[in-house]
Amino acid sequence: MADDKKLTTRTEDFSAWYNELVLRSELADYSPVKGSMVIRPNGYGIWERMQRTLDDMFKATGHQNAYFPLFIPQSFLSKEAQHVEGFAPETAVVTHGGGKVLEEPLVVRPTSETIIYHMFAKWTQSYRDLPIKINQWANVVRWEMRTRLFLRTLEFLWQEGHTAHATEAEAETEARLILGLYREFMEGWIAMPVITGQKTESEKFAGALRTYSCEAMMQDNKALQAGTSHNLGQNFAKAFELQFQAENGEQAFAWNTSWGVSTRMVGGLVMTHSDDNGLVCPPRLAPIEVVIVPIWKSDEERARVVEAAQKVRIELTEWTGRGATDRLRVTVDDREGVKPGAKYYEWEMRGVPLRLEIGPKDLEKGSVFSARRDMRAKAALPMAGLPATVATLLETIQGDLLAAAKARREANSHRNVTSYAQFKEIMEGPGGFVYTGWNGDPAIEAKVKEETKATIRVIPDPEFRSAEAPRTCLVTGEPAKHEVIWAKAY
Amino acid sequence: MADDKKLTTRTEDFSAWYNELVLRSELADYSPVKGSMVIRPNGYGIWERMQRTLDDMFKATGHQNAYFPLFIPQSFLSKEAQHVEGFAPETAVVTHGGGKVLEEPLVVRPTSETIIYHMFAKWTQSYRDLPIKINQWANVVRWEMRTRLFLRTLEFLWQEGHTAHATEAEAETEARLILGLYREFMEGWIAMPVITGQKTESEKFAGALRTYSCEAMMQDNKALQAGTSHNLGQNFAKAFELQFQAENGEQAFAWNTSWGVSTRMVGGLVMTHSDDNGLVCPPRLAPIEVVIVPIWKSDEERARVVEAAQKVRIELTEWTGRGATDRLRVTVDDREGVKPGAKYYEWEMRGVPLRLEIGPKDLEKGSVFSARRDMRAKAALPMAGLPATVATLLETIQGDLLAAAKARREANSHRNVTSYAQFKEIMEGPGGFVYTGWNGDPAIEAKVKEETKATIRVIPDPEFRSAEAPRTCLVTGEPAKHEVIWAKAY
Repeated sequence: MADDKKLTTRTEDFSAWYNELVLRSELADYSPVKGSMVIRPNGYGIWERMQRTLDDMFKATGHQNAYFPLFIPQSFLSKEAQHVEGFAPETAVVTHGGGKVLEEPLVVRPTSETIIYHMFAKWTQSYRDLPIKINQWANVVRWEMRTRLFLRTLEFLWQEGHTAHATEAEAETEARLILGLYREFMEGWIAMPVITGQKTESEKFAGALRTYSCEAMMQDNKALQAGTSHNLGQNFAKAFELQFQAENGEQAFAWNTSWGVSTRMVGGLVMTHSDDNGLVCPPRLAPIEVVIVPIWKSDEERARVVEAAQKVRIELTEWTGRGATDRLRVTVDDREGVKPGAKYYEWEMRGVPLRLEIGPKDLEKGSVFSARRDMRAKAALPMAGLPATVATLLETIQGDLLAAAKARREANSHRNVTSYAQFKEIMEGPGGFVYTGWNGDPAIEAKVKEETKATIRVIPDPEFRSAEAPRTCLVTGEPAKHEVIWAKAY
Repeated sequence: MADDKKLTTRTEDFSAWYNELVLRSELADYSPVKGSMVIRPNGYGIWERMQRTLDDMFKATGHQNAYFPLFIPQSFLSKEAQHVEGFAPETAVVTHGGGKVLEEPLVVRPTSETIIYHMFAKWTQSYRDLPIKINQWANVVRWEMRTRLFLRTLEFLWQEGHTAHATEAEAETEARLILGLYREFMEGWIAMPVITGQKTESEKFAGALRTYSCEAMMQDNKALQAGTSHNLGQNFAKAFELQFQAENGEQAFAWNTSWGVSTRMVGGLVMTHSDDNGLVCPPRLAPIEVVIVPIWKSDEERARVVEAAQKVRIELTEWTGRGATDRLRVTVDDREGVKPGAKYYEWEMRGVPLRLEIGPKDLEKGSVFSARRDMRAKAALPMAGLPATVATLLETIQGDLLAAAKARREANSHRNVTSYAQFKEIMEGPGGFVYTGWNGDPAIEAKVKEETKATIRVIPDPEFRSAEAPRTCLVTGEPAKHEVIWAKAY
């Protein structure tokens, strides 16, 4: 962290800013295998908090964790026609094991529908065995050509939920339930507002009946698909003979859902909140919420302020006002030989939400000096009742981050575009989300993508639709079948 | 779980018993890829509790989690001579990615020393950057020919810790510290007593200076290597140029340690405690500690006992006497159409440590009827103060399991073997741990292995050595260099 060169700014080059920030804040590093990344402790700490929160949500809704193999027989992938078309081109293939050529090559899982539904079929005889509601935390591999730290890497970490139900209605309810959990997590923890809705046929998951998605807007006005939940219908059940004896005695195919979020969310967090000084991390996901920096000029002062800083740390971490299991996460930076300014710079780069400075004068006044990372606002806080003050301030920061991101998204959303020419101007210029009518024709979708690079992100859920539904398709002028949201995307 | 056939017994065929038990208690299942396994929720729940406990221990001793890539360039493996010799024969190799032949094949990590120390070298300039203390939870692949659920599988889950230090003494302290944590965990949580000590040259990790190990004895008297901690010396630091500027200004190579435990421990848990009725799981690691089975004859009774059972469940789970974060894990089995006996059978197979039965008469008496899984002892417990009674009983079970396993190990340990002929008799017969003198010659070690299949498990740490050290080598009669423990092993 000794490197104190300024980051490229977001306005200069958003992409360079992002890469520099991820490296300099020690979230991740490039690995010797092209396209793969190393997730460093500062980044993994965020991912661990994401995992823990989501895992609790999944368990609270009746899901259990399990683990399925990394390797999938190549023939499995081919059993569902759309699925193989979607994934086969980007697989990594193991051809040798233990020094010998394998009889059947093994695919490194790009996603696990095939092997999981094969196992579900083995475990399911009757309707009494359903529903099965399983999740796994795992690594997956997709051979991507253009990679980007966290956003698109050869290997990434994710969770994939897989369920089997006796009825279509149950599967649909499950797919929507998870979409809701994802949104709750993304808005409540990442402070990243998302629009939920359904993907068009051309954008849905390979093998799904319907794909639902959470779409966020990054600071460069591009969309990030942050999580998806699929109603798979009976496509995989038929391919893998996942059948059960129904209550009426007849054999029936099960209905499946699958859903996933990944380390990509860490990239979304970075691009939603961070600034030209480095990472801005929402407090709920920050591995360290508060850094205390004691300030001294002499050795005598040093002894006093370091002692006071450690006392404050203990007081904060021992406080149980947020619940016994949710202590304040605090560190003291009492390094010698590093100036306070250099310390501020480092902790700002690393995204710690709140800094407390304690100097001899603060001690006299019975206060500490606080600096918020997000808006860089500063204020003295009385020592008395500090834990509750700090906890409240952190929740304020959490809320302000979400509100700021929502305001930014809305400021860059366009709901009154009246011509395709105007649409093109927006996509060539500032970008953002554009709400339009669409006639439902995939050819129009393809044409717009070809001409502007914008895609339909979602057919938004009712609460996100415009007050007055657009009546005509922006491109053809024909009657609109849906209101849709267009954007360029990661 | 409908299958109510008896398990093959341990005395009939220990190996068949183990496999049947793992499948029938739904800990794991075979996967379509030979040698790989599926870890089912009942088994994964145990692994999750193992992970959480160890993770807390690692963090409390200053380690941080990170994540390194699955794929390692084949050339990396070759940089440390012993390491490549040990691992190259059992690697899985990716030769194709994204539909193309790769320029350099990629190895699926069998362990991550090479890629991790490559990254450490990138991150380390000065002594101020040390120590680095990192752990990762990951899957690894080793192409094994003879596989066994949990004990030896093509892919397994584990943690691998990797550290870099400025001095040899620090690295040695770290390797020993972790060995101590492993022992604490295995005895305190798995209730599996282990002997700690050092591996001989021929049994040490490929590339290590010294390997320390935890060795447990299974119910068939075979040894299980349950966890290892390596002082890697400067072998990998030299191979990967992991250097730093020391305080005196000179360049020096760092000292590394690595250490790991895996899903193999679940196999160890099974083979330490379970019986012919199925899994016996120590309470601290049991996903469910208590199952409540309401007993009824009529619908009227059913309503009353189910209500009472749910009340007891709530009382138990809301009790915070073990700490707010460590609630009792309780379920109620109120299924209709399944007889109590069938329920008992199922939950015994699945290893739930304590069963509480509640019938109309128990309600009248203000008590519940309890049945311990481990010794199948039964007793009435008063409803008043039930949570504390249950918690105490569970701790008693936990302690009794450890004591029983320790007694069994000692009953099958042989410290007074006076001739190699007697040694052979033991290894051909009942097996167990045999303590002998050894002249330190690897050729003798190899000869004994060849003739008896027994290997030196460890040169035991002082507390495990015999009161009187053997003076001569059992095989050659020469002066003994070490006291060692021999056993056949998994």
